[in-house]
Amino acid sequence: MSFARNIAAEALGTAMLLAVVVGSGIMGQRLAAGNDAIALLGNTIATGAGLVVLIHMFAPLSGAHFNPVVTLTFLLRGDTAPRLALFYVAAQFNGAVIGVWAAHAMFGEPLWQISTKLRDGWGQGLAEAIATFGLIGTILTTQRSRPEFTPTAVGLYITAAYWFTASTSFANPAVTLARSLTDSFAGIALPSVPLFIASQIAGAVVALLVFGWLILEEPPHV
Amino acid sequence: MSFARNIAAEALGTAMLLAVVVGSGIMGQRLAAGNDAIALLGNTIATGAGLVVLIHMFAPLSGAHFNPVVTLTFLLRGDTAPRLALFYVAAQFNGAVIGVWAAHAMFGEPLWQISTKLRDGWGQGLAEAIATFGLIGTILTTQRSRPEFTPTAVGLYITAAYWFTASTSFANPAVTLARSLTDSFAGIALPSVPLFIASQIAGAVVALLVFGWLILEEPPHV
Amino acid sequence: MSFARNIAAEALGTAMLLAVVVGSGIMGQRLAAGNDAIALLGNTIATGAGLVVLIHMFAPLSGAHFNPVVTLTFLLRGDTAPRLALFYVAAQFNGAVIGVWAAHAMFGEPLWQISTKLRDGWGQGLAEAIATFGLIGTILTTQRSRPEFTPTAVGLYITAAYWFTASTSFANPAVTLARSLTDSFAGIALPSVPLFIASQIAGAVVALLVFGWLILEEPPHV
Amino acid sequence: MSFARNIAAEALGTAMLLAVVVGSGIMGQRLAAGNDAIALLGNTIATGAGLVVLIHMFAPLSGAHFNPVVTLTFLLRGDTAPRLALFYVAAQFNGAVIGVWAAHAMFGEPLWQISTKLRDGWGQGLAEAIATFGLIGTILTTQRSRPEFTPTAVGLYITAAYWFTASTSFANPAVTLARSLTDSFAGIALPSVPLFIASQIAGAVVALLVFGWLILEEPPHV
Repeated sequence: MSFARNIAAEALGTAMLLAVVVGSGIMGQRLAAGNDAIALLGNTIATGAGLVVLIHMFAPLSGAHFNPVVTLTFLLRGDTAPRLALFYVAAQFNGAVIGVWAAHAMFGEPLWQISTKLRDGWGQGLAEAIATFGLIGTILTTQRSRPEFTPTAVGLYITAAYWFTASTSFANPAVTLARSLTDSFAGIALPSVPLFIASQIAGAVVALLVFGWLILEEPPHV
Repeated sequence: MSFARNIAAEALGTAMLLAVVVGSGIMGQRLAAGNDAIALLGNTIATGAGLVVLIHMFAPLSGAHFNPVVTLTFLLRGDTAPRLALFYVAAQFNGAVIGVWAAHAMFGEPLWQISTKLRDGWGQGLAEAIATFGLIGTILTTQRSRPEFTPTAVGLYITAAYWFTASTSFANPAVTLARSLTDSFAGIALPSVPLFIASQIAGAVVALLVFGWLILEEPPHV
Repeated sequence: MSFARNIAAEALGTAMLLAVVVGSGIMGQRLAAGNDAIALLGNTIATGAGLVVLIHMFAPLSGAHFNPVVTLTFLLRGDTAPRLALFYVAAQFNGAVIGVWAAHAMFGEPLWQISTKLRDGWGQGLAEAIATFGLIGTILTTQRSRPEFTPTAVGLYITAAYWFTASTSFANPAVTLARSLTDSFAGIALPSVPLFIASQIAGAVVALLVFGWLILEEPPHV
Repeated sequence: MSFARNIAAEALGTAMLLAVVVGSGIMGQRLAAGNDAIALLGNTIATGAGLVVLIHMFAPLSGAHFNPVVTLTFLLRGDTAPRLALFYVAAQFNGAVIGVWAAHAMFGEPLWQISTKLRDGWGQGLAEAIATFGLIGTILTTQRSRPEFTPTAVGLYITAAYWFTASTSFANPAVTLARSLTDSFAGIALPSVPLFIASQIAGAVVALLVFGWLILEEPPHV
């Protein structure tokens, strides 16, 4: 793959991911008649199924990180070059915002929105740390023992994490920042963003240490 | 496969797909007590699971296009001969209508119905273009890198797209026209059909260009 | 496998299937506060997931037919010997009843019940014929082209068929008769049973003819 | 794998499993506006998807038992050494409690809770015996015929068992005891715990006998 194709694929994949997350959140909220559990069920099924497809689609094209802490993980493990990592992160943030706007445009909402949904408190921070810890653990372990299953594993993990974490598992700084630009079901107010991103980075670093140790003696796949 | 078997399989598969889409929409609407999110959940699970099975069943028999823009895509890429493509599209339109009538018959509804549900506006058009763009992208990328996963990928993609696109993702001209013949949950009024079909063709053409470029350097599967 | 193990496995598997179908129906009805779509969602997810597991578990032990029309299909195609087929059908009917009673016992209901839920009319008959046609078609086509996928295909097919057929897809004479012995969500009144079973046999025969023709020229798997 | 990594992996995996079970129960209960079927749907989808991922993650590290009766089964079949089994069971009980506390912390609930939800009666005991019988049967049969499918089979089995058993299928003594420490949707009062654990052990022993006989003549996988 040429460099330009790599970056374009990473941006397009992240944009499609955000269109799925935000679009299905709007659809759920509009149809669920005020029952947030039903809205979250639709949001969950769409995001889980969408992630499995998107990672399968883009893994051969860009690696399908879609997530700065995933890129950071591969950078720290020496699997992604620093220059490429920088461009990937930029592509992820820009793609994510475009995806949010695409969702707004489809649903006839104003493109430019600012979320007013505060997501604060230690519980939310811990939830994001645990969510990201599990996500990075999912990737590191399955990449080593059964790499062809990793795309499905990530989709299933996020399906679970939408429900078991108090924050509904953003687990992704690009997704977090972009979701501050939608005042819908999936939104997050800007003041809550720094806690989320800091927790995500912390969770990823702990995952790197813990799972790095756990898989140390396991022979790599061939 | 003989020519006749090809065409018959394509028509039967498309008929079964429409029976699933329209039948599960009627079931959802009848049972959900007015909560459209719950009706859409049932409609989604049935359609997604059904598509995965139907494509596995008919892929060895006809290729399991079930969709004129999919046939158009394979025609433009030189994978389907023009004469076969023409018969496929005819089989798809006829099969789709028969599937709608089969759903009506099972649920004791009048066979002949005309939908009154308008689905208009730029947002709906954009939604259909994005839905079809993603569908064609799903097929082109997974066919190249992991073809045995394409049937599952298409089912999961439509599962997501029922929720993340404002139009609930028709993404198929034969499905669109046939759904104008049901005045139930899955229906679309005839005046809204041209916008949907034009948007679907536009989305498919853009997908051919974008994903055709993205997968250009990737070696084909062997 | 010895003959006794074959029969025992077929009976146990069918019993577990009925415990899943009837048990999850009772659970859905008890919790769903009168919303039948929500009850059916729980019933569907349990049955679909349960079928995939049960067929994987019992396929190497008995073939995992769990269904007299499936046994009939394999008998007519020459894949099952007549004497074994006879014992299988007996095992299926007996296992099914035991499964219903196990569900009643778990939920603290009287073991012996007679359903009062009439499921009559041409639409219901057509629905059962179509449901069984699709089930046999799923088995015949995937067994030929991708046999390791058949267990999953059957589970996904029934997931879809619970929603797209007006009868919620019994598609199985042993299941039908056993469900006349539960006066819960999944029940069927005895007077409706003959129509269901006749329609199931008709659907299976048509599937044998249609799919037998469609897959005629496809080379068998090796 | 060194001994320490084995034990640490087993404890961490069990902790993550309980965080999923209890956390998604709290989320479901908070959002479902009193409709327990909707809460259970969210709880089910999270637990099923989470189990598939967790077993894939930890199977190469510790075997991913997460369950004293699974460890007991492997001990009785001679697949796990007695000393390792002892440490595993300790790791499971300790990990399970930590997982419950992690869920409480994320959702801003008091860490230390005692459940008041009585789950008593013969039906509940039978349900736990059947639930565990099916779980051990799932593991024994799929491990023999298709071991790469076992992680998915267990997740799908529990998905079904949350709905078809009257007890919502704890099927695990460590999970049962830990869930006595949460006064939320997934809780169980301490007086009900002994019945559950005794039933689980009984179900496992019966499964060992029945499925041990059924798979006796089947050649092991190679």
